[in-house]
Amino acid sequence: MAELADRLADGEVSTEHAVLAAHRTDEAYLVPSGWPLCAVYAHSTADVVETMRWATEHRIPVVPRGAGTGLAGGALAEDGAVVLSLERMTAVRELSVDDRLAVVEPGVITADLARAADGHGLMYPVDPGSAARSTLGGNLATNAGGFRCFKYGVTRESVLGLEVVLADGRVITTGHRTTKGVSGYDLTSLFVGSEGTLGVITGATLRLRSKAVGPRATVAAYFPDAAAAARAPLALARDGLTPSFLELIDEVTLRALHAWQPLDLPGDGVALLLAEFDGVDADRAAAETGRLCGKLNAVATQVTTDEAESERLLDIRRHALGALERMGRTMVEDFVVPRSRLGDMLVEIRRIAARHDVLIATVAHAGDANLHPTLLFDRTEPEIPARVWSAADDMFRTALRLGGTLTGEHGIGTLKRRWLRDELGDDGTGVHQTIKSALDPLGIMNPGKVL
Amino acid sequence: MAELADRLADGEVSTEHAVLAAHRTDEAYLVPSGWPLCAVYAHSTADVVETMRWATEHRIPVVPRGAGTGLAGGALAEDGAVVLSLERMTAVRELSVDDRLAVVEPGVITADLARAADGHGLMYPVDPGSAARSTLGGNLATNAGGFRCFKYGVTRESVLGLEVVLADGRVITTGHRTTKGVSGYDLTSLFVGSEGTLGVITGATLRLRSKAVGPRATVAAYFPDAAAAARAPLALARDGLTPSFLELIDEVTLRALHAWQPLDLPGDGVALLLAEFDGVDADRAAAETGRLCGKLNAVATQVTTDEAESERLLDIRRHALGALERMGRTMVEDFVVPRSRLGDMLVEIRRIAARHDVLIATVAHAGDANLHPTLLFDRTEPEIPARVWSAADDMFRTALRLGGTLTGEHGIGTLKRRWLRDELGDDGTGVHQTIKSALDPLGIMNPGKVL
Ligand SMILES: Cc1cc2nc3c(=O)[nH]c(=O)nc-3n(C[C@H](O)[C@H](O)[C@H](O)COP(=O)(O)OP(=O)(O)OC[C@H]3O[C@@H](n4cnc5c(N)ncnc54)[C@H](O)[C@@H]3O)c2cc1C
Ligand SMILES: Cc1cc2nc3c(=O)[nH]c(=O)nc-3n(C[C@H](O)[C@H](O)[C@H](O)COP(=O)(O)OP(=O)(O)OC[C@H]3O[C@@H](n4cnc5c(N)ncnc54)[C@H](O)[C@@H]3O)c2cc1C
Repeated sequence: MAELADRLADGEVSTEHAVLAAHRTDEAYLVPSGWPLCAVYAHSTADVVETMRWATEHRIPVVPRGAGTGLAGGALAEDGAVVLSLERMTAVRELSVDDRLAVVEPGVITADLARAADGHGLMYPVDPGSAARSTLGGNLATNAGGFRCFKYGVTRESVLGLEVVLADGRVITTGHRTTKGVSGYDLTSLFVGSEGTLGVITGATLRLRSKAVGPRATVAAYFPDAAAAARAPLALARDGLTPSFLELIDEVTLRALHAWQPLDLPGDGVALLLAEFDGVDADRAAAETGRLCGKLNAVATQVTTDEAESERLLDIRRHALGALERMGRTMVEDFVVPRSRLGDMLVEIRRIAARHDVLIATVAHAGDANLHPTLLFDRTEPEIPARVWSAADDMFRTALRLGGTLTGEHGIGTLKRRWLRDELGDDGTGVHQTIKSALDPLGIMNPGKVL
Repeated sequence: MAELADRLADGEVSTEHAVLAAHRTDEAYLVPSGWPLCAVYAHSTADVVETMRWATEHRIPVVPRGAGTGLAGGALAEDGAVVLSLERMTAVRELSVDDRLAVVEPGVITADLARAADGHGLMYPVDPGSAARSTLGGNLATNAGGFRCFKYGVTRESVLGLEVVLADGRVITTGHRTTKGVSGYDLTSLFVGSEGTLGVITGATLRLRSKAVGPRATVAAYFPDAAAAARAPLALARDGLTPSFLELIDEVTLRALHAWQPLDLPGDGVALLLAEFDGVDADRAAAETGRLCGKLNAVATQVTTDEAESERLLDIRRHALGALERMGRTMVEDFVVPRSRLGDMLVEIRRIAARHDVLIATVAHAGDANLHPTLLFDRTEPEIPARVWSAADDMFRTALRLGGTLTGEHGIGTLKRRWLRDELGDDGTGVHQTIKSALDPLGIMNPGKVL
């Protein structure tokens, strides 16, 4: 380790217990079985190169790490690993209005880039719930989504190119400064979402967009239950309405929110669908959405263009996890079903909750049918209880059976490794392993994650 | 070969000279040095599996082939290769309105899917100039673009998942039936644009979108020259205007069009910018674009919502290549520069044309700064003349120097192989080779293309 510290230009190595304790886990509440060797704070690509060369020479596992807000145990650091923190590489190296892009280091906080873009009349649309804390490197490594991705796409749709340090310390750049480009294989997409298992992302060229013009318009529609609310996104799609925010809050979550801060609800046990529109057509689209929800038997519908009232409504969704965390410990889940099966999946979740005797509160990015059921359990439990795991297992298998996928935005990490083969199949898993071994023959890049 | 014919369930093997002659080249006008062994017409995934197993056993190169409209020599078949034609796998297996997707076989013609989607009130937006003939498999293998990709993205943005037969005959499915999904590596993107060098695409789940509502509005703006016209896309972007079609036609191309079918031009030597808007905001956006072009010194500007007049205007662009082909043999080029450098690149092209004494006519997908210069030469030339190659070389290097990329949509194929390392760098090329060897260890998948 002294050798490593010597080789770093500006980076630092820490073996302090408090630092290791803070850097060996993420927000999935999984506890690693051992302790990492040390944490390296990289200040530059050169520091990352030296760390990876040293790790290759000594065959030491490396766990890349951003802000540690991950929900899949992707940054869990086991015995003998080096935690490679990118959080101090925080420069926005360039922001070009005409080329509509930003060149960033991996430690830039998501919300900081959004603010910088906004200051130039542009938009960086990827907005995970963790945007105030998560890093762009973490977002890229998990292909993060968020509230606006139904309209604007996930992280992948906002990446033009990457700088990546490979396991052996080689540095490659992928992609282009241009939006289009098909020269060579799409290595950018290969590294996006690879959860630190193929290389360390040390830089990115990100695409910025025009800011939406005009005032926003927001719709809140209350339905008798979540499955009823789930019919609205299909109706909206059929009418060509594309909200920039389309969230479903089920009856359990709404009750938790109401218990925390009373809401003006049109009845007990209702579910809420929130839609926001931006752009010149916002007004008309919101009014039309309100009408559609009425036809679909919404109990009550509100349409507003008032900024403050809009924010109050969207905050209901934003505070959902906070309200649930007041009730106990939480395991936040994340999977996707085909759009047409959102209602079916919500019904299945109610059955699974009953079958395994677990309280499950669900919110969903409803436009993409990306569900986030939160499984609640007692704060006194030392670990995630068996019945919570079996309810989760039941949900994943049901989602796959309905034609869905194990994770929409949080990733596989440590948490979902055991189910991945069910989704990929044996040959699909084999191809993953082939690619992993080709790029990381010693298996030192975030071992034990994903595969 | 008799063995192969035996093993195919429905597929056919042909060694007819006329078939081989028609199937050993594409529209890049490059001539392969030898002759393929045979052509296989696959009727099912099973046929492709058997062909690949047989090819692996005998180490025989396989060249996957769609309609052969490629412009990069990607489907060129050299001595001893098997041409594997997917053009008879033409089923649209499913078209779901609620899940907004289609499951297709690779031989479906691009325009046929667009029509099928339209019949269900949906849109498949990818529309290469070759849409009436190209196959979806070819579009996927080249990551094809087209006129509408500035607003709706290239093929990649419309793919949810693939079925791929690997070099050794294993079949994998990649991706999801859902829009979002991050379980495992993004193998879908890895195969999209890989030009048949990593596997054979035998099926795809494609994303469909809502049809744009309301009438279209079209703008035609004539500028003193192409570089002047190139300033308009930047001004549009700054004002948040996103046309569904934004094409630039330079003065040389416009003269060729005018010589063929007289146009009502506001002067000689002018360049044309064509913009079309769809959606509810089309009218306002077109009017605003007209005003912006006026401010940027357009010589004349026309704004119309008349369908017939719109079609007449867009046809000017659609007929560009046809008009040029009347003048001689053509080499159609394809590269991209950062948006801010479109004007600079157009000026450079004029210089390069003069320097190498080649007539170069340029059109561009102007929103993405994706240029298609056509190099013209005499029909009597037996091969592409040296000065045409050196003009092309000069253009590619200039595009790279300006921060661009070698190809925006046609691919590397055979045509641009020699320049790829200049763009990818040595380590980037190394990673490409590593991935290629990992998935195709015997090197039988479309050898000599891309890498
Ligand atoms: C309250 C809350 C709300 C959330 N909401 C959302 C949401 O709406 N959408 C969503 O998608 N996620 C959400 N998340 C999950 C999480 O914030 C995202 O996964 C985020 O992208 C992680 O970023 P990070 O910087 O914290 O990465 P970390 O947690 O530090 O790391 C995540 C993974 O990326 C790898 N990694 C990190 N940086 C790099 C790098 N530079 N190079 C290579 N690999 C790297 C790690 O090894 C790990 O596998 C939420 C989390 C919380 C706590
Ligand atoms: C007039 C004209 C206009 C054009 N306009 C455009 C345009 O606007 N945008 C654009 O992007 N391109 C355009 N092109 C180029 C061409 O049409 C596209 O590249 C198209 O995607 C090729 O499809 P194809 O079926 O003809 O494929 P082919 O030419 O048969 O093959 C192209 C490549 O894909 C591989 N391939 C084909 N099918 C498969 C498969 N199933 N699995 C694996 N590999 C496969 C081949 O090996 C080859 O490398 C145009 C061409 C012409 C002639």
